Amino acid sequence: MTAPVGIIMGSKSDWPTMQHAADMLDTLGVTYEVKVVSAHRTPDLLFDYAKSAQGRGIKVIIAGAGGAAHLPGMAASQTSLPVLGVPVKSRALNGIDSLLSIAQMPGGVAVGTLAIGDAGAKNAGLLAAQILATSDNELLARIDAFRNQQTETVLAQPDPRNAD
Amino acid sequence: MTAPVGIIMGSKSDWPTMQHAADMLDTLGVTYEVKVVSAHRTPDLLFDYAKSAQGRGIKVIIAGAGGAAHLPGMAASQTSLPVLGVPVKSRALNGIDSLLSIAQMPGGVAVGTLAIGDAGAKNAGLLAAQILATSDNELLARIDAFRNQQTETVLAQPDPRNAD
Amino acid sequence: MTAPVGIIMGSKSDWPTMQHAADMLDTLGVTYEVKVVSAHRTPDLLFDYAKSAQGRGIKVIIAGAGGAAHLPGMAASQTSLPVLGVPVKSRALNGIDSLLSIAQMPGGVAVGTLAIGDAGAKNAGLLAAQILATSDNELLARIDAFRNQQTETVLAQPDPRNAD
Amino acid sequence: MTAPVGIIMGSKSDWPTMQHAADMLDTLGVTYEVKVVSAHRTPDLLFDYAKSAQGRGIKVIIAGAGGAAHLPGMAASQTSLPVLGVPVKSRALNGIDSLLSIAQMPGGVAVGTLAIGDAGAKNAGLLAAQILATSDNELLARIDAFRNQQTETVLAQPDPRNAD
Amino acid sequence: MTAPVGIIMGSKSDWPTMQHAADMLDTLGVTYEVKVVSAHRTPDLLFDYAKSAQGRGIKVIIAGAGGAAHLPGMAASQTSLPVLGVPVKSRALNGIDSLLSIAQMPGGVAVGTLAIGDAGAKNAGLLAAQILATSDNELLARIDAFRNQQTETVLAQPDPRNAD
Amino acid sequence: MTAPVGIIMGSKSDWPTMQHAADMLDTLGVTYEVKVVSAHRTPDLLFDYAKSAQGRGIKVIIAGAGGAAHLPGMAASQTSLPVLGVPVKSRALNGIDSLLSIAQMPGGVAVGTLAIGDAGAKNAGLLAAQILATSDNELLARIDAFRNQQTETVLAQPDPRNAD
Amino acid sequence: MTAPVGIIMGSKSDWPTMQHAADMLDTLGVTYEVKVVSAHRTPDLLFDYAKSAQGRGIKVIIAGAGGAAHLPGMAASQTSLPVLGVPVKSRALNGIDSLLSIAQMPGGVAVGTLAIGDAGAKNAGLLAAQILATSDNELLARIDAFRNQQTETVLAQPDPRNAD
Amino acid sequence: MTAPVGIIMGSKSDWPTMQHAADMLDTLGVTYEVKVVSAHRTPDLLFDYAKSAQGRGIKVIIAGAGGAAHLPGMAASQTSLPVLGVPVKSRALNGIDSLLSIAQMPGGVAVGTLAIGDAGAKNAGLLAAQILATSDNELLARIDAFRNQQTETVLAQPDPRNAD
Repeated sequence: MTAPVGIIMGSKSDWPTMQHAADMLDTLGVTYEVKVVSAHRTPDLLFDYAKSAQGRGIKVIIAGAGGAAHLPGMAASQTSLPVLGVPVKSRALNGIDSLLSIAQMPGGVAVGTLAIGDAGAKNAGLLAAQILATSDNELLARIDAFRNQQTETVLAQPDPRNAD
Repeated sequence: MTAPVGIIMGSKSDWPTMQHAADMLDTLGVTYEVKVVSAHRTPDLLFDYAKSAQGRGIKVIIAGAGGAAHLPGMAASQTSLPVLGVPVKSRALNGIDSLLSIAQMPGGVAVGTLAIGDAGAKNAGLLAAQILATSDNELLARIDAFRNQQTETVLAQPDPRNAD
Repeated sequence: MTAPVGIIMGSKSDWPTMQHAADMLDTLGVTYEVKVVSAHRTPDLLFDYAKSAQGRGIKVIIAGAGGAAHLPGMAASQTSLPVLGVPVKSRALNGIDSLLSIAQMPGGVAVGTLAIGDAGAKNAGLLAAQILATSDNELLARIDAFRNQQTETVLAQPDPRNAD
Repeated sequence: MTAPVGIIMGSKSDWPTMQHAADMLDTLGVTYEVKVVSAHRTPDLLFDYAKSAQGRGIKVIIAGAGGAAHLPGMAASQTSLPVLGVPVKSRALNGIDSLLSIAQMPGGVAVGTLAIGDAGAKNAGLLAAQILATSDNELLARIDAFRNQQTETVLAQPDPRNAD
Repeated sequence: MTAPVGIIMGSKSDWPTMQHAADMLDTLGVTYEVKVVSAHRTPDLLFDYAKSAQGRGIKVIIAGAGGAAHLPGMAASQTSLPVLGVPVKSRALNGIDSLLSIAQMPGGVAVGTLAIGDAGAKNAGLLAAQILATSDNELLARIDAFRNQQTETVLAQPDPRNAD
Repeated sequence: MTAPVGIIMGSKSDWPTMQHAADMLDTLGVTYEVKVVSAHRTPDLLFDYAKSAQGRGIKVIIAGAGGAAHLPGMAASQTSLPVLGVPVKSRALNGIDSLLSIAQMPGGVAVGTLAIGDAGAKNAGLLAAQILATSDNELLARIDAFRNQQTETVLAQPDPRNAD
Repeated sequence: MTAPVGIIMGSKSDWPTMQHAADMLDTLGVTYEVKVVSAHRTPDLLFDYAKSAQGRGIKVIIAGAGGAAHLPGMAASQTSLPVLGVPVKSRALNGIDSLLSIAQMPGGVAVGTLAIGDAGAKNAGLLAAQILATSDNELLARIDAFRNQQTETVLAQPDPRNAD
Repeated sequence: MTAPVGIIMGSKSDWPTMQHAADMLDTLGVTYEVKVVSAHRTPDLLFDYAKSAQGRGIKVIIAGAGGAAHLPGMAASQTSLPVLGVPVKSRALNGIDSLLSIAQMPGGVAVGTLAIGDAGAKNAGLLAAQILATSDNELLARIDAFRNQQTETVLAQPDPRNAD
């Protein structure tokens, strides 16, 4: 069976960021596929990927890219699946270019944008799961459990001065 | 039956922006509820709203706010439903404060952020529908039709020098 | 007796910044409590904390957070106590997101915002003491003494080329 | 009897902004004095004002300025009273210069910074009152009443589509 | 014969900006074609356009877009022709998002970026002509003439206080 | 025979960035000359260089500079040759000053601006070659081959989790 | 006799800004010459102007420009006279590009930069006079008088609520 | 005899930056005094320093500060001497806050602002010397010599690929 989430990224060098999306999906028991798809160096692959994703059983696409980050928006131009965008921290401008390139889409083609960097990738995995959970109560229960555990972890260590 | 989408905003003055989310949902045949919920002036209402949303049948929350825009992130802190955030254009800083306040969430609580202003609100409606369509093929067909029509409109007027 | 200042922060990782607030209060002889309270991961705790603070004898709340920093503003939404916000330096954007998320509050709910990072935390401690000193002349004298000593330290080393 | 709040501003042209601080103090029944004090054009007046404020019975200073906004920080350099800074929206840069000039104080001299423009001025009035209320229960009750009314106003108009 | 320059833009609303590119080419006696091609709403058209441009005799592509401006970079991904990008001024962020989305391309796919708005469009026309003139001495002479006239116009009115 | 591309830079310290332009031209079999020409320290040399470039057989100028980066624009003021600008990453502001100083040229004198830093330098070499290829089919074939190889490299390593 | 101050600007459209420099010099009794000198459209004139200024008796140059504002820095590259730069407010980016293009000069060629827009132009006139006054006690007295009057004007209207 | 240049800075930690001003003055044979003067921690010293500078024979003041950098503008408020401001690179925001705090002065009190960091400090020394040279031909000759040597150094090493 095809995985319901497709994680794509513009370059192999984006993987240290994007693996946080994969790790979150692992935590929540959601399967996924991972692929390097470059908007600028492999545009035809990008279009094939985005056009075929729904037919292959993909439900949500997570796309990460940095700098002039066109991957999420261009994926969204070729599919009606929800596309989530992760702005990867860029070398010169720390990802503010990535964030604006992904978030500032024109009306009519949407990308749900997450935070710059690791936190954003982690949350892309989480939001993809939340989207799938709108029709999957078992997954919803696992998300609730993850969130509860996350809350408990904070509550269990109220004093920041203590060692872990 | 409860509407599957809840649109909330921090102030009545956000409605001229947020109505573009409502209009898009109307176009796609998705019902929704609309409410002013202020993170700062009605925090208890916000928590009640977010905690009860799933039980009332809401599937996706769209939250719009400007400036130090805490509404989307705080809604997300109280529900496992997908939350989409619309940065409303602010008076002094044109919405860059709204965008950063919504997008830069820490890992573990996710908000899918759209563009600043009208385009972002429209796309929040569209992305909410795309999320619902992951388990609703009829809605998916309506989204595809909307997208095709949007494409046809551009293709029908290739010369920008012509009057409409 | 309850301490008059409550220092809260969104994550244990904020402590290296926020301890400068605690150190300043120590210097000025003001007692305080310290707690990790996450707006996004422990929202109910945040509301409990802020709602109960005044009843427990807290007079000023210092809240530090980074990125989409909602902790100070949301604390302020639940108490009439003065709330001071410290923008913690964030990984990608160096705290400009934290600063805007804390400072750009809408009219009606106020946060007194300090500088990004260590200097801001130190000054949050100082300003909290100054607030308490509006009705505590002994504390005021200690603040004056601290300020005088600070001035003397600069005056005693007028030549920046000398070793300390 | 001297008013407990001093509102100063760098130029007469800042009054349309700063009057929101005065209005809020009026609403809360707090008296205040208002004066144009320019850090750059009347520096001696600024120092006299700040040095003498405490002796004259002032408890909190609110200082508004735009551009290279030195008024709040320089007032704070000459008094142990709490100083609140309001970044006035500037002509070219919309107040981001004002905000950074006021908020980014070095450790040791604190300014509690509010939002750019009208909302910030209103909140400076509110925060000044909150500071005074740390030792004035009647004022605290008036602040609580103001906040409750503010909450009720939002709750009374939940649908943003209705006319006021 | 096909025109050597193709001017494309993401939306009909970009024409008031992009016509400055057309005007400059008219001034320099360079023919061109003009077409609305939206990266997000007509991605297949964009790919067809870019892939076929060289075969149709196009030598330089000028692409204008605003916000998350993906048109120039995606055109460049599908052709070895020089692509010039014009950042159109955007509603919320005045074109800084457009500029970063166009200029910050990764190594391996190039876009020559011009200034935000009208000046950038005019210069895109000029630079396209300069590129063609690397193998067209008559065009080079016309460009030199244009530049000389531009210089003369400034020299002829040295005093800014005189009416035109 | 003179090389068709002139690479100039404001300082020897720009070479680690600008060598990526040279490397790309080497890869594509395009000869070039390299010279330090400082707009501010050797302005007469800059004017001589730019005025004489066309006569010496130069077809495209690549100019790299950082901070208040005037080299590309001032070179463009003295020649009708296409000028490409590379914003070198600056010490304090990471190259955003360089980017704006190069890109925001007034209408009438054009600079084709590339990305900040190494990627921009590489793409300046690529775009210079693309410009020359508008009248050199053999070079065009080499560019096409480079691009195809670049695409194949991505396609050959689709899984970012594998070691190279 | 030659005027001691030369005011140049990149375009006639900069005059509404730059006339504030002229007005200030008029106020202080300092003569000046005014000329449009465009760095990009009349580079040779710029070099002639800057190289000949000292010989003609000019003591200080004031240069105003917007966007990629190269005029002040390039003037400074050709003269040992003090050069003051005025960042003119630009259409898209409100002068932040002008400010960075003028202020961020490399070590070895200096420009004294003033504020963006009218205030900066006025202060350029004032600073030019202050420079001349380092060897002209009568001018110094006039500057002192201007400053005293400026101070008196503020002191005379301490209440911002009064009509002028 | 008093030195004609006074170099002041807000903190001893600014010396590694500000020594570049001193070094440049040494190179040009201009004497100077150096002192730590903190606008916020020693405001009275600042006023004494600025008010007495002219009487002590100081002709130009160089003031360096970081963050909310009020030192240059406040010095300028108390003297008719030319004041040059050096924005020291700040910890969180890399000196953009320092730059705006120094440059964006209101009309009527001028600061000539240099670049952020070392280059700005070096140029403050250079510009101070240029100001003094408006009435000192021997110094002017030394400045010309420095500039010529600077030019020769660049011309002597035209190839950036060679080792120094």
